[in-house]
Amino acid sequence: MRTSARNHFTGQIAAVKPGAVNDEITLRADGGLEIVAIITHGSAASLGLAAGKGAFALVKASSVIVMVDGDASKVSTRNVIAGSVASVTKGAVNAEVVIAAPGGAQIAAIVTNESVDRLGLAAGKAASALFKASSVIVGVDD
Amino acid sequence: MRTSARNHFTGQIAAVKPGAVNDEITLRADGGLEIVAIITHGSAASLGLAAGKGAFALVKASSVIVMVDGDASKVSTRNVIAGSVASVTKGAVNAEVVIAAPGGAQIAAIVTNESVDRLGLAAGKAASALFKASSVIVGVDD
Amino acid sequence: MRTSARNHFTGQIAAVKPGAVNDEITLRADGGLEIVAIITHGSAASLGLAAGKGAFALVKASSVIVMVDGDASKVSTRNVIAGSVASVTKGAVNAEVVIAAPGGAQIAAIVTNESVDRLGLAAGKAASALFKASSVIVGVDD
Repeated sequence: MRTSARNHFTGQIAAVKPGAVNDEITLRADGGLEIVAIITHGSAASLGLAAGKGAFALVKASSVIVMVDGDASKVSTRNVIAGSVASVTKGAVNAEVVIAAPGGAQIAAIVTNESVDRLGLAAGKAASALFKASSVIVGVDD
Repeated sequence: MRTSARNHFTGQIAAVKPGAVNDEITLRADGGLEIVAIITHGSAASLGLAAGKGAFALVKASSVIVMVDGDASKVSTRNVIAGSVASVTKGAVNAEVVIAAPGGAQIAAIVTNESVDRLGLAAGKAASALFKASSVIVGVDD
Repeated sequence: MRTSARNHFTGQIAAVKPGAVNDEITLRADGGLEIVAIITHGSAASLGLAAGKGAFALVKASSVIVMVDGDASKVSTRNVIAGSVASVTKGAVNAEVVIAAPGGAQIAAIVTNESVDRLGLAAGKAASALFKASSVIVGVDD
C-alpha cells in the first residue's frame, strides 16, 4: 500500500481502548515512539486490531502542527515528537517543514508561511511536531 | 448553503449510531456511495438526524489522502472511493489531485508535491481517495 | 508556548462532558466566543481540565471551512464564527482567507483557489468560518 500521507510509522499495536463509537489505539512504532490514534470501533474490529498485531500509522502533513518553546504536557495533542527543523520549503501561501527526531524519524508538516516567519522556523531550530490522535489513520499489512 | 469544502455528497441518512460524546452517521449518497461521519452527539441531535432524513456530507480537500496499489480493507479510514486520477495541479508545495469515481463522482485532494512524485500520480492512473469519518461534516437543508 | 496553528483562542473552560474515549470540552474565550473541542479523555485528565480553569484552544487554518449564504444551524460543525472576509491571499493551489468577526477575532482559513473563485470570496464579503470540534486542540498555561 502506498499513500500520499507523508508520515508513516510502522510497528505493532500496544493497546486498544474500546468505546461505543470510537476506539483509542496505541501503536508502538519501530524505534520506540508511541503513536495514539482514534478510529471508529467498526474500523478497529474490521482490521482485527489487538495488542501485538503488526500495524502502521499514517498522518497527513497538513494535520501536523509545529511547536517551539513549548511544553508537551500543556497541550491536548496525544502525539508530540520533539526534534529540530531539518528543512523549510516555502510556497506562495503554505510551507513544508520537516522535523527530524533524535531517533532518526522525520515528520513533515504543512503550515502557513506566516507561521514559519512568526516562529522563526529554519534548519537547526528546536521544534516539536504535534498531531491529534483523531488525525491518525491505522493500517495493517495482512 | 455554499462552503469552501470541495467535496459535497448529497443523499439521505441511512443510520445513526449514538455514543456518549460522538455519534457515527452513515449517509447514503445519491449514486449509492456510503459516507460515514463522526460528529458530536450534540450536533446530531440538533440537526435531527435520523434514518431517511435528507442530508449532505462535506469533506475538505486537505482531509483526503490518495492511495495507490492499496487494499481498502487494510486501512482504518471508513471512507474509501476508488477511481482514477482525473487531473493534477501542482503548486510550489502542494498539489491538487482530482480523482474520478466510476459512478461520476469527483473527489478533490490536496497533497504535497513530494507525494505526487513519489506515487507517480498523473491523469488516468488508478487511485483511491481516503478520508476519515472524523473529517466529514454533515448538513441538512431544512 | 508558540505553535504554527494560526488560530488561538484564550479563555477558560466552561464545561467538560466525559466519554469513555473522548471528552467534549467547551471553552469560553475572551470576548464571549464559545469553542467546542473533542479531545481524548486521557488528555483532558492529564491537563486537569475542569470548569473555570484557564485554557486556550488552537485550530489549524487548514481545518477551517469558509461558508457563505449559509445557516449555521444546518451544519454539524460545532464551531461557527460569522463575520466578513478581511483578506484573501492566493497561491498556485491554495489560498489563505482571513475572516474578521465583529468582536475583533480574526480566523485564518486555507482553502483551494477554486473555492475562492466559486464562492466569490473578497474583502468585505460576509462569510463564516466553520471548524469541527475534533479539529480543536486544547492547551493550558500552568
